[in-house]
Amino acid sequence: MSTFGTLFRVTTYGESHCASVGAIIDGCPPGLELAAKDVQTQLSRRRPGQSNLTTPRDEKDLVHLQSGIEHGVTLGTPIGLLVKNEDQRPHDYSETDLYPRPSHADYTYLQKYGLKASSGGGRSSARETIGRVAAGAIAEKYLKQAHGIEIVAFVSSVGKIHLPSTISSTAATNADDDNDEIEDSLTPEFRTLLATVTREEVDKFPTRCPHAETSERMIKRIIRAKDAMDSIGGTVTCVIRNVPAGLGEPVFDKFEAKLAHAMLSIPATKAFEVGSGFRGTEVPGSKHNDPFVLREDGNLGTSTNWSGGVQGGITNGEDIYFRLGFKSPATISQSQDTAQYDGTPGTLAARGRHDPCVVPRAVPIIEAMAALVVMDELLIQSARKSAASLLPAVTTLPPTMILPTRK
Amino acid sequence: MSTFGTLFRVTTYGESHCASVGAIIDGCPPGLELAAKDVQTQLSRRRPGQSNLTTPRDEKDLVHLQSGIEHGVTLGTPIGLLVKNEDQRPHDYSETDLYPRPSHADYTYLQKYGLKASSGGGRSSARETIGRVAAGAIAEKYLKQAHGIEIVAFVSSVGKIHLPSTISSTAATNADDDNDEIEDSLTPEFRTLLATVTREEVDKFPTRCPHAETSERMIKRIIRAKDAMDSIGGTVTCVIRNVPAGLGEPVFDKFEAKLAHAMLSIPATKAFEVGSGFRGTEVPGSKHNDPFVLREDGNLGTSTNWSGGVQGGITNGEDIYFRLGFKSPATISQSQDTAQYDGTPGTLAARGRHDPCVVPRAVPIIEAMAALVVMDELLIQSARKSAASLLPAVTTLPPTMILPTRK
Amino acid sequence: MSTFGTLFRVTTYGESHCASVGAIIDGCPPGLELAAKDVQTQLSRRRPGQSNLTTPRDEKDLVHLQSGIEHGVTLGTPIGLLVKNEDQRPHDYSETDLYPRPSHADYTYLQKYGLKASSGGGRSSARETIGRVAAGAIAEKYLKQAHGIEIVAFVSSVGKIHLPSTISSTAATNADDDNDEIEDSLTPEFRTLLATVTREEVDKFPTRCPHAETSERMIKRIIRAKDAMDSIGGTVTCVIRNVPAGLGEPVFDKFEAKLAHAMLSIPATKAFEVGSGFRGTEVPGSKHNDPFVLREDGNLGTSTNWSGGVQGGITNGEDIYFRLGFKSPATISQSQDTAQYDGTPGTLAARGRHDPCVVPRAVPIIEAMAALVVMDELLIQSARKSAASLLPAVTTLPPTMILPTRK
Amino acid sequence: MSTFGTLFRVTTYGESHCASVGAIIDGCPPGLELAAKDVQTQLSRRRPGQSNLTTPRDEKDLVHLQSGIEHGVTLGTPIGLLVKNEDQRPHDYSETDLYPRPSHADYTYLQKYGLKASSGGGRSSARETIGRVAAGAIAEKYLKQAHGIEIVAFVSSVGKIHLPSTISSTAATNADDDNDEIEDSLTPEFRTLLATVTREEVDKFPTRCPHAETSERMIKRIIRAKDAMDSIGGTVTCVIRNVPAGLGEPVFDKFEAKLAHAMLSIPATKAFEVGSGFRGTEVPGSKHNDPFVLREDGNLGTSTNWSGGVQGGITNGEDIYFRLGFKSPATISQSQDTAQYDGTPGTLAARGRHDPCVVPRAVPIIEAMAALVVMDELLIQSARKSAASLLPAVTTLPPTMILPTRK
Repeated sequence: MSTFGTLFRVTTYGESHCASVGAIIDGCPPGLELAAKDVQTQLSRRRPGQSNLTTPRDEKDLVHLQSGIEHGVTLGTPIGLLVKNEDQRPHDYSETDLYPRPSHADYTYLQKYGLKASSGGGRSSARETIGRVAAGAIAEKYLKQAHGIEIVAFVSSVGKIHLPSTISSTAATNADDDNDEIEDSLTPEFRTLLATVTREEVDKFPTRCPHAETSERMIKRIIRAKDAMDSIGGTVTCVIRNVPAGLGEPVFDKFEAKLAHAMLSIPATKAFEVGSGFRGTEVPGSKHNDPFVLREDGNLGTSTNWSGGVQGGITNGEDIYFRLGFKSPATISQSQDTAQYDGTPGTLAARGRHDPCVVPRAVPIIEAMAALVVMDELLIQSARKSAASLLPAVTTLPPTMILPTRK
Repeated sequence: MSTFGTLFRVTTYGESHCASVGAIIDGCPPGLELAAKDVQTQLSRRRPGQSNLTTPRDEKDLVHLQSGIEHGVTLGTPIGLLVKNEDQRPHDYSETDLYPRPSHADYTYLQKYGLKASSGGGRSSARETIGRVAAGAIAEKYLKQAHGIEIVAFVSSVGKIHLPSTISSTAATNADDDNDEIEDSLTPEFRTLLATVTREEVDKFPTRCPHAETSERMIKRIIRAKDAMDSIGGTVTCVIRNVPAGLGEPVFDKFEAKLAHAMLSIPATKAFEVGSGFRGTEVPGSKHNDPFVLREDGNLGTSTNWSGGVQGGITNGEDIYFRLGFKSPATISQSQDTAQYDGTPGTLAARGRHDPCVVPRAVPIIEAMAALVVMDELLIQSARKSAASLLPAVTTLPPTMILPTRK
Repeated sequence: MSTFGTLFRVTTYGESHCASVGAIIDGCPPGLELAAKDVQTQLSRRRPGQSNLTTPRDEKDLVHLQSGIEHGVTLGTPIGLLVKNEDQRPHDYSETDLYPRPSHADYTYLQKYGLKASSGGGRSSARETIGRVAAGAIAEKYLKQAHGIEIVAFVSSVGKIHLPSTISSTAATNADDDNDEIEDSLTPEFRTLLATVTREEVDKFPTRCPHAETSERMIKRIIRAKDAMDSIGGTVTCVIRNVPAGLGEPVFDKFEAKLAHAMLSIPATKAFEVGSGFRGTEVPGSKHNDPFVLREDGNLGTSTNWSGGVQGGITNGEDIYFRLGFKSPATISQSQDTAQYDGTPGTLAARGRHDPCVVPRAVPIIEAMAALVVMDELLIQSARKSAASLLPAVTTLPPTMILPTRK
Repeated sequence: MSTFGTLFRVTTYGESHCASVGAIIDGCPPGLELAAKDVQTQLSRRRPGQSNLTTPRDEKDLVHLQSGIEHGVTLGTPIGLLVKNEDQRPHDYSETDLYPRPSHADYTYLQKYGLKASSGGGRSSARETIGRVAAGAIAEKYLKQAHGIEIVAFVSSVGKIHLPSTISSTAATNADDDNDEIEDSLTPEFRTLLATVTREEVDKFPTRCPHAETSERMIKRIIRAKDAMDSIGGTVTCVIRNVPAGLGEPVFDKFEAKLAHAMLSIPATKAFEVGSGFRGTEVPGSKHNDPFVLREDGNLGTSTNWSGGVQGGITNGEDIYFRLGFKSPATISQSQDTAQYDGTPGTLAARGRHDPCVVPRAVPIIEAMAALVVMDELLIQSARKSAASLLPAVTTLPPTMILPTRK
């Protein structure tokens, strides 16, 4: 359905050619200072038309907050919001409508509902993500103010152009190799990048890849796809800093399980990995385990972070990082040999220009979904922790079962 | 929490040293013939001690069905079941309990709850998966009988030993390459493997990798880890056949999102990819798109299947396949330099022998979780489809919005 | 939270002085013809200012559909809708704001959130019900078209003015009586009323009590309350006709449990009874049991209907009826002795005129909530029934366990 | 489905003749001392065979805790528990099985599932309530220890034998009366009863009606029903003391809505009222409103309590009380004229002896369900309150929106 979250819950509506797209955000803590600009900033970052690398439409996407706020402060009640669609006319019929677009949602929506929006993919439209980004921006504001949590995503590859392996989590060879190759731990450079990268730095580059040389090569790759009336995918890496230890529910709602759910719900995603990811399947346990060390703040930390901030499905206080893979966009400008809805083979003619690479625009969407997951898990854990704190101390437990006092 | 699913819902309990582990399965359709052996078969496949590649404990794991069945037929009411724990004594205190095991759940559980089970990781115990496997076996029985759905998982890599690329979905280079390399589509051999592989074939190999030569090399790799008192991870590929088109909910509960949620909830998983996965980020759209063709059954199919059976978050009727990455097990037999709970640096002494590679045993767990996802989505879509079928036909829609009649 | 339902789900937002109130309706079957007027009709029925018995404000309450519909037909995707607030300025400060209004939500909202909307009760505002009514109207349209289901509510009492006992379900004496009094079954007149009453008949009376003489007396009672700057409560009876047998989930989500949940969520409600209700606690089982009879349609029915259409938490195909009690409105025009927020005793001065009796306006809200419950339970049961129908027939069950063939 | 609750969640399984009935309780705070006897006490109170007023079977009902507890302390993980069924053989076929028992669940279960348990009503069996009572006992233990919350239910009527109106909330005349009758507020005696009644006092009476004279008359009434091979219903009143202000969620999950949901899910219930209930529909607002007063603890309280501890759907800190109506049991010992499953009219022969009045045994079930509601709402509110407390203070709000400082 169109609802995400348990205690912090977002519900969205809207497709391409209806009156508006919008969302209801329920469960926002009361007393948070919130203005339209807090939401608008991220909405504008996801907007098309920001550079010559993306589609030239200018959708404006001004958010209208409807409820849940008075005098610039949240009331704790649901926040309704909407963004009007510029083009509200149902799509006109054309010869191309005889064809389900390959690898798009036209065919599956028709199978699911028995009918489909004139625009084809209905809720699979990229405009659907507006509600997510708005909700995420609200969650982020809280997380920043109450916990100092920071979420930063950046493009780590476009096609085969990758960040240098020295500042990347992933060098899974997928190569067939019987020998024990020396496998270096995550580099200090990569951990530093995770610890320090900011949205401002990311936004300096039209690709949102915060490495000048790689970004230049990505630009060329995207322009090459554009010139070929083709498209190209990529990956986005995201770090979440300052998340308290203890978030995530055992068994089915592990932190990374909810994170994966959230991320794979973003259109065009095909792959997700947290921490060492696929690379971690190749590194022996003795090298992959993260040794504990005493941190300056008196808590335990780990000297390496292959775990990606999550152990046993629960956050451990280290930086959480993950990588998300986007397939090359299905909508391309060149003609394609395929079949009509009725099975007749034919050629779907070339259409107008399209966004050859959506990965840079996906960055704020990923940040938003990450914020929604952290926010929801934080509220659930707050309930438990707060409830447990009111019980009288138990004095009969063996020392192995309780939190030891620091020496 | 410990519940998964909306209309087909499993709730589990139990940790290592309590009386039993168990589950309640709610929402099973009435009228399904079901006996303990239907469940036992898969439970036995996940059991340790099945070969010299796994840990030698023999847990038996006999399932006791409690309710919801009479005369060998499901009533539609909740099915309670349990498997007794052989060792029900709380863990004895030992010097090693001063240390949280690196990359295990000891530390995070303690942070989450303020206390922890004497066994350390509580619900992160592998015994927790028994309830999943039992529930999945029930779902599978229904799916097979009512829809002919087949789910088969197999090991596709151990450490750096991979299935040959000719029969694998993944050859993402992760290599930095500015040039447009020719990227072959999924091979016919791989599609044939997906279309035909059976559990019987998989179980012929102790590694559960259905390729004799690769399996032999994996065995050597696992033995090498064992001899080194170390551990090694791997990946499992899973195919789901004969799933009807139309499953999966738009936006937040896309089919692959729920699948990723289910899979990343399995202990030790770090990575998930569906269809072309990370490789799909590198292939241009013109090659990655799956052209439609008319299938023999009169429905549309696709001539390639980079999508992995899911488009726009909704199944399209093609084989669904995905790959899941397991990190190398955190529990190893060699000593480790780390810190105690109170921060004191030290060496966690070597313990007894442990399972050096859990990937073969993970196979039935993945099949179970896949079955739970398909079952739940199937019921949800059944509700919609059944409800829509009772409406009078709408005659005023433009032809682009409705399912065309086959010529 | 602000969401109701599992497969047919409504989420609402909005309070008195924000920009708009609205809702997202998720799970509406595709292919339903739907226009704004379908929703507007019921919204207008809940609107204040419809007679001299209610508050004179005219809120207009025009609904704006945002999504989920094209060419007048539902797509199966979420339907967003909103109704603008005429007065969007936060409430001005006044001396009366020192006082929490007695029996209103001012105090409890402040306790819950630590702050409150300037209007006091925030989401307890009657305008919150607009979203419910809109959602219910959509559900009703489906229920009527697909199943011929009819839902009609009417006022059965105002203060101590009740419908004659001959056409009422309730004559629980609450009188202390040791003797076995003869307790007549529900009268044929009452069953006829339930079977035939229409909204058109109900709306002929400003009180929405479809009995001319009683309605006249109710009008006098309400005018008396108005003249006394006081308020008066009442009860509403509702019937749901043509609901298929088999709706409602065993144990926690019994049909009447969800119905009670839905009804007691309506502002100012204090009491709910289904079927014989409190009266059924006083009638011996031998008289209270509803004997089965063969109906003309070949199904079993019951010759009496003390059960109110629900047995064991599951609908039996008979008319479902229930009664809901509304306390006298807390907002009255006379001054009240009470305390300020800080505990200082004082007199809350009289304010402007208010609606002395809200029961007539509650009628469409009750119908809406009833529709939401039926719709959700119908979808859930559709999933089960559809799933079970695909299983091969079981031939080994004893005859007591299966549905007998009609002779 | 068979799950209740969001953060404190109970899932149950089991019917009459299966191996066991049981439950999984998820979300119990860690660090609570808990032993089997904490659960057994309430289970024994719901057990049949406790006096000559109830059915003579002795079911024992010993609870077996399975998980979630070590060294007598909860771990925070799910608590599995079960109670074995003494009679595990499926019901034998008999001539009476041709008939669906009137007003029982035989017919509706068959309609719902297409088949039914041999015992007829499947999950509608009274044994289903064992899981609820066990879960409620665990919740109660926490509520008592952490908040001093007390929950006491007692029988307030059997048939037409009621507690004296001086110690009862309900004297709704349901009498038709145009005049303004003087309506006294809740009596001080009743408020004292609510404030002081204990389970020990209640259990002194076999009827569980804590008023000697009324109890005696109830006993006679029940014996009269027994002698007539008939049955009789009744009502139970329940009070919840020391619940903090602020529990309950606006709009759909108002405190009384969840309470009504929980209560109407108990078998044989037909009616629910909170606070003034149906009586409150007849009392003018000026008399019904509860004036605020400063309490000794420095918080606001109300001098009367028609609201029943809930205002605007949110608790206000006063005693919460409600009344629940149980119809006369459907299972009676005398023969009944009705129809067979196939519609053939006939007489369902008398069967063995049955419990003529279940109301006394319902007392612990009501207490359990009340505990589950309070516990769940408490956890949800804890999350919000804890989250809001971490925000920086907002200084720009008008004084009407914030909690005033006590003078």
